[in-house]
Amino acid sequence: MLKEAIYHRPKDAFAYAYDERTLHIRLRTKKDDVDIVYLLFGDPYVWKDGAWQFDKQSMQKSGCDALFDYWFIAVQPPHRRLRYGFELHAGEDVLIYTEKGFYKQAPTDDTAYYFCFPFLNRIDVFHAPSWVRDTVWYQIFPERFANGNPHLNPPNTLPWGSVEPTTTSFFGGDFEGIIERLDYLVELGINGIYFTPIFKAPSNHKYDTIDYFEIDPQFGDKQTFKRLVEACHAKGIRVMLDAVFNHSGYYFAPFQDVLKNGAKSRYKDWFHIREFPLQTGPIPNYDTFAFVPEMPKLNTENPEVKQYLLDVATYWIREFDIDGWRLDVANEVDHQFWREFRQAVKAIKPDIYILGEIWHDAMPWLRGDQFDAVMNYPFTNGALNYFAKENVKASEFAHTIVNVLHNYPNNVNEVAFNLLGSHDTPRILTQCGEQKEKVKLMFTFQLSFSGSPCIYYGDEIGLTGGQDPLCRKCMVWEKEKQDRDIFAHVQTLISLRKQYRALRFGEFHMLEANDTTNHIAYVKTYDDETIVCVLNNADTSLTWTVPFSLKDKTVINLWTNECMSEQTINIEPYGFLMLLVQPTSAV
Amino acid sequence: MLKEAIYHRPKDAFAYAYDERTLHIRLRTKKDDVDIVYLLFGDPYVWKDGAWQFDKQSMQKSGCDALFDYWFIAVQPPHRRLRYGFELHAGEDVLIYTEKGFYKQAPTDDTAYYFCFPFLNRIDVFHAPSWVRDTVWYQIFPERFANGNPHLNPPNTLPWGSVEPTTTSFFGGDFEGIIERLDYLVELGINGIYFTPIFKAPSNHKYDTIDYFEIDPQFGDKQTFKRLVEACHAKGIRVMLDAVFNHSGYYFAPFQDVLKNGAKSRYKDWFHIREFPLQTGPIPNYDTFAFVPEMPKLNTENPEVKQYLLDVATYWIREFDIDGWRLDVANEVDHQFWREFRQAVKAIKPDIYILGEIWHDAMPWLRGDQFDAVMNYPFTNGALNYFAKENVKASEFAHTIVNVLHNYPNNVNEVAFNLLGSHDTPRILTQCGEQKEKVKLMFTFQLSFSGSPCIYYGDEIGLTGGQDPLCRKCMVWEKEKQDRDIFAHVQTLISLRKQYRALRFGEFHMLEANDTTNHIAYVKTYDDETIVCVLNNADTSLTWTVPFSLKDKTVINLWTNECMSEQTINIEPYGFLMLLVQPTSAV
Ligand SMILES: [Ca+2]
Ligand SMILES: [Ca+2]
Repeated sequence: MLKEAIYHRPKDAFAYAYDERTLHIRLRTKKDDVDIVYLLFGDPYVWKDGAWQFDKQSMQKSGCDALFDYWFIAVQPPHRRLRYGFELHAGEDVLIYTEKGFYKQAPTDDTAYYFCFPFLNRIDVFHAPSWVRDTVWYQIFPERFANGNPHLNPPNTLPWGSVEPTTTSFFGGDFEGIIERLDYLVELGINGIYFTPIFKAPSNHKYDTIDYFEIDPQFGDKQTFKRLVEACHAKGIRVMLDAVFNHSGYYFAPFQDVLKNGAKSRYKDWFHIREFPLQTGPIPNYDTFAFVPEMPKLNTENPEVKQYLLDVATYWIREFDIDGWRLDVANEVDHQFWREFRQAVKAIKPDIYILGEIWHDAMPWLRGDQFDAVMNYPFTNGALNYFAKENVKASEFAHTIVNVLHNYPNNVNEVAFNLLGSHDTPRILTQCGEQKEKVKLMFTFQLSFSGSPCIYYGDEIGLTGGQDPLCRKCMVWEKEKQDRDIFAHVQTLISLRKQYRALRFGEFHMLEANDTTNHIAYVKTYDDETIVCVLNNADTSLTWTVPFSLKDKTVINLWTNECMSEQTINIEPYGFLMLLVQPTSAV
Repeated sequence: MLKEAIYHRPKDAFAYAYDERTLHIRLRTKKDDVDIVYLLFGDPYVWKDGAWQFDKQSMQKSGCDALFDYWFIAVQPPHRRLRYGFELHAGEDVLIYTEKGFYKQAPTDDTAYYFCFPFLNRIDVFHAPSWVRDTVWYQIFPERFANGNPHLNPPNTLPWGSVEPTTTSFFGGDFEGIIERLDYLVELGINGIYFTPIFKAPSNHKYDTIDYFEIDPQFGDKQTFKRLVEACHAKGIRVMLDAVFNHSGYYFAPFQDVLKNGAKSRYKDWFHIREFPLQTGPIPNYDTFAFVPEMPKLNTENPEVKQYLLDVATYWIREFDIDGWRLDVANEVDHQFWREFRQAVKAIKPDIYILGEIWHDAMPWLRGDQFDAVMNYPFTNGALNYFAKENVKASEFAHTIVNVLHNYPNNVNEVAFNLLGSHDTPRILTQCGEQKEKVKLMFTFQLSFSGSPCIYYGDEIGLTGGQDPLCRKCMVWEKEKQDRDIFAHVQTLISLRKQYRALRFGEFHMLEANDTTNHIAYVKTYDDETIVCVLNNADTSLTWTVPFSLKDKTVINLWTNECMSEQTINIEPYGFLMLLVQPTSAV
């Protein structure tokens, strides 16, 4: 057995409290190197005749990637304390793996050899709102979704959808337009809206905040926003806003004060200023988002700034009853701020969803003390590479997905914000070379995968466009110009997802990832619900053989509601199967 | 190159802020598998002609253990942001290692491939009090250090040192006795005292608290304690108390109330009670420390309990000006409690030292939001195995030490609480089979190693004793009964440690670990200060050859103050060398 490949370190993704009674333990070994893994585990204080007493239980292989196998087990220690090690078997070879290293036999003279989960304290359990894993999100870029009130149109507003958007164009989208279109969203089936920023800001994207306590007048006023939230809630739709707390806009009053009064400004410590007077170029002499002088970084370590932003965060919850905060550039703000942010917002709305924008490995933010979830870009990129760009084959995609799932605890994965597109990426139909069957296949994967999926406005009716600003086109409302085929596809997927818990938060296992045919097959299970999905990501049809005997089983094609009777079935190019598998007796 | 062995994951011990400007990056590779490692790094927002711009700098090998090599580099990103990857060379082979996996060439089309340290926020930097790394601690078990006031002796107090201690014996140690003996400690050279518990409690060890706001009357009153702290401070000695917050004692008033009033007690939620009425056996039906019914676990998630304990923590700082809290059974208390504990105590005394009792891997408590340090038992066990029990050879000890150093960030290691013995372990002289030369060699290692070393009372004068209660004998004050040779040895070591920063917090590099001779050699460096230590852990003498040319160098034996002129030197059994190495021109 390759010792160098064996990895475990509590806590994070390898040993964590799944709930108030259950610990999850994972182990990594070299791929195809180990046959059986047992967890050796016991209460640290249970001894008999001078020997520590432990149990032994076999772990399940939960997935593999190019280099490694991953093993999993759930245990419920009666006294919420655990010492544990691993017993690995490869043929006749046996290896004991502990915190102190490798042994031939499990030591019993001391528990200090073993890994430790000292106590399962309830307050430390990662705990996201339970509604999130039942939610399908819809992302709205308010300037481009619907124009319901022309009186609010900003100067130089262009006729709706008349031209391709530029970085500076305005088309007049507003809250009234969104309210008018809520029935469309209900018809689609979504039950959460994520709004990109709505606070007062000069740009069309509003990431350059002037006033965090004001609605941008082009969208409406606070009363209209209240009406919007209430209308959403009445239809069972949650509302998430975008918190741009890493930096303010250039016209944010405190920054203007610093520009004007320099070192004498009472706001000079609200930002990270290296020297006075402020200079915007060639590189700003104050910290900014990227090197954008119009986006000065806020000093979130300053207690005044902290209080101001926490007031903002709680104000929109208290006064408007919003259900989530999406945190822009969350990774560049200090952890201490986010810990206090979590305390503050959860204190007034315990089931609010805290979603961080982090594009890379985000474990340090997902330990239960900061965010509930991050935007799952590794998922996004994996799906785009495999389905859209086709620059990776089935097995590499399978490895990416296994990695995505093993990078974080399961309770984190269950509420991951799984997006395919956003205002920051080219339209998925464009990335798919306008082959809509590929877009449909991506949606099939996204909406059968665990987590909290999000649909970027317009992707469901086939909007196109390259990198922003082109991916921020006006929503198309004329039915004849919408791709109703994609719409119906997404609608059906959402409705199946609502029906089957296995689709929403079932355990995911990759069954097949075939580089020759380029198809994948995976199973989602929850309690006695088992759903098998087969995705034929190729321009040729696939003859697929069910990898288990149909005898004694009833297999229903959820798309056609037909019962499957043949062991082999044909799947058309970019087609798929979604099969509910039940023991025949249960039907 | 063995890809399975290559490991890096931000943040923790592999990518961390060392100070407000400096990031430390580490990488792990298979032992002797990689020749050169370069860090590829740059600001995520610096691009030119569509390509991300990065620098390249070679990393240093910082150590090895049985399986792995470790690589290190410090970088100071001008805008406090970093994306980075690794370029590994083995002969002609080149491998790029990033967050997204392995590549043949470094990708420049996207920074998303790379590992990310998004922003070096000052408030998130691990920051322990600077005085800690300059401190040599002395642990006092107050019942056994000195009896200065016979009037306070508890009933049945035995004559000082008249018999071996049992679990229930009292010898009458008290604060007055400690005050009288402070000059002895000054003579030894220590500048911090860690007191095991002093609050009102029935046992001799006082880990079974009755009242956290009262001094145990056998030790004295609050005035005497204040006098003790002031006397310590006057002599430059810091004072650390023991906080037993995981559990109370059986006679703690709230627990007594629950015992009496059961489910009707207003304190019923102060503990973790599974059912009423309380039963102490066979296994208590309430959570306890281990299965000890007299030590009911406190419910630190209960806001009332939390407030009570935080009041305790701040009371002893505010009223008595203590300098540190050692946290008993710290690993079984919730992280959230410790985060609030840190905020509360640092708010009133920013440079207070927070030391957790954790015997296993403690990374989750050492991320800057909870503890400053933990009791470094992996260091203790490594030293005991190599020096005392001699059940591991030089190389295995070297690997343990390298592991100890690579498990945590350097700024954590610099304040680690490095102990050889305590009230929980047999006396080191006893573990050394009463061979005092071995004890002296252990002290030489401990006091030349980084961190904050601690001497258990009496070890410096050769007290003996097995597992507790035997390791808690009365301190011996008759000079003729003290081992003055060990005392003088420790005294010299402490004085050299005070003189040389390289000894206190210099970088540690293992030079030699020879299993044939069983000697080790290591170098400590700080700025231009270089000290080489050679420890001959064998019962035969060692002929040691200086592993560098003496030409152009002046090498001073710090123990004898002699200048070393020969390339080869003899070291007697269990002897050692401590050499200050300087360029001749500098002398
Ligand atoms: Ca409008
Ligand atoms: Ca006394």
